[in-house]
Amino acid sequence: MPKIVDHDKQRVLVAEAAWRIIRRDGMEQASVRNIAEEAGVSVGSMRHYFSTQSELLRYAMNLVSERVSHRVQKMSFTGSPMDNMKCLLLEFLPNTEEKLAEMEVWYAFTARANTDPTLKELANTVYDELRQAVGSVITYLIKLDLSRPDLDKELEIERLYALVDGLGIHTVLRPDQMNAKLMDDVLTLHLASLCR
Amino acid sequence: MPKIVDHDKQRVLVAEAAWRIIRRDGMEQASVRNIAEEAGVSVGSMRHYFSTQSELLRYAMNLVSERVSHRVQKMSFTGSPMDNMKCLLLEFLPNTEEKLAEMEVWYAFTARANTDPTLKELANTVYDELRQAVGSVITYLIKLDLSRPDLDKELEIERLYALVDGLGIHTVLRPDQMNAKLMDDVLTLHLASLCR
Repeated sequence: MPKIVDHDKQRVLVAEAAWRIIRRDGMEQASVRNIAEEAGVSVGSMRHYFSTQSELLRYAMNLVSERVSHRVQKMSFTGSPMDNMKCLLLEFLPNTEEKLAEMEVWYAFTARANTDPTLKELANTVYDELRQAVGSVITYLIKLDLSRPDLDKELEIERLYALVDGLGIHTVLRPDQMNAKLMDDVLTLHLASLCR
Repeated sequence: MPKIVDHDKQRVLVAEAAWRIIRRDGMEQASVRNIAEEAGVSVGSMRHYFSTQSELLRYAMNLVSERVSHRVQKMSFTGSPMDNMKCLLLEFLPNTEEKLAEMEVWYAFTARANTDPTLKELANTVYDELRQAVGSVITYLIKLDLSRPDLDKELEIERLYALVDGLGIHTVLRPDQMNAKLMDDVLTLHLASLCR
């Protein structure tokens, strides 16, 4: 009887092996051969899951984004409006070990995406989705009449989005200096500064 | 008579060739062989300039940082304090084609640095230097008594630094959405919000 292999599960296992290699050894080492070895599958069987290295990397990059989306969809907003907005923003920030690992991998993927059109398209889609989520915070502040009356909506969206990404990247670059507590404090300060 | 080669000039030429490859083809293609070809020198002669690929990449990364430092040192601060502070911050942001090219390369280097200790040490040094420069803006605002009286100095330094890096990275990732005008507007808004 042939061995029954769950293809979707295998693809996830291979993608997670790619993440480990990228984090530990760098994007330069993310060859199909190295990833197969890390995942504990034969190089020959890899073609059942991904037809090219490019397809594999795109899948592994997309899996990071899906994990984040999944967490956001599961969120329940039970606090005050300000708390809820901060919680939403913190969901995109690496304030746990698991999320820091995801962000390190995401950083490596976006760097590679600058010279890889397949990854770039995905990077751009996620950039727009995250801008949309950040934008909803500013829109919500205005709608609830919590914000200063003179708020420049579009400019504040760009400012908040740059701040969120800057905090995340600083945590990836210097986890000894930027951390969960400091990110929370900076976001609290920033949101308060937007309000009356 | 032997050909006289200016070693320092050659090292810069080779480093600039490395930048072009990193921007055009990605860090994965930045082999000594590819860089030699791009620089128009023989692979054999490369050992006169750099003993290892790692040394070459460190030199090329450091050259980006030196170019930025050089520009900052040449700055003359002749405007109002607020203008001077904004000009200093804008000097670290990719608001010209040349600086965007530098930042693209820097982004690729910092991503690689996460798994390369030689580059990581340099990345950390530059991270601290830039934090120092951003910190001087906040300190200056307080010293000139322009800032709100309740300003939390350390928190505001982290906020401004994350904002500056976020704006820079957004320009690298989406030059179609983030640009020189928008970076200037966001920084103007942010600095004004810190003041009385």
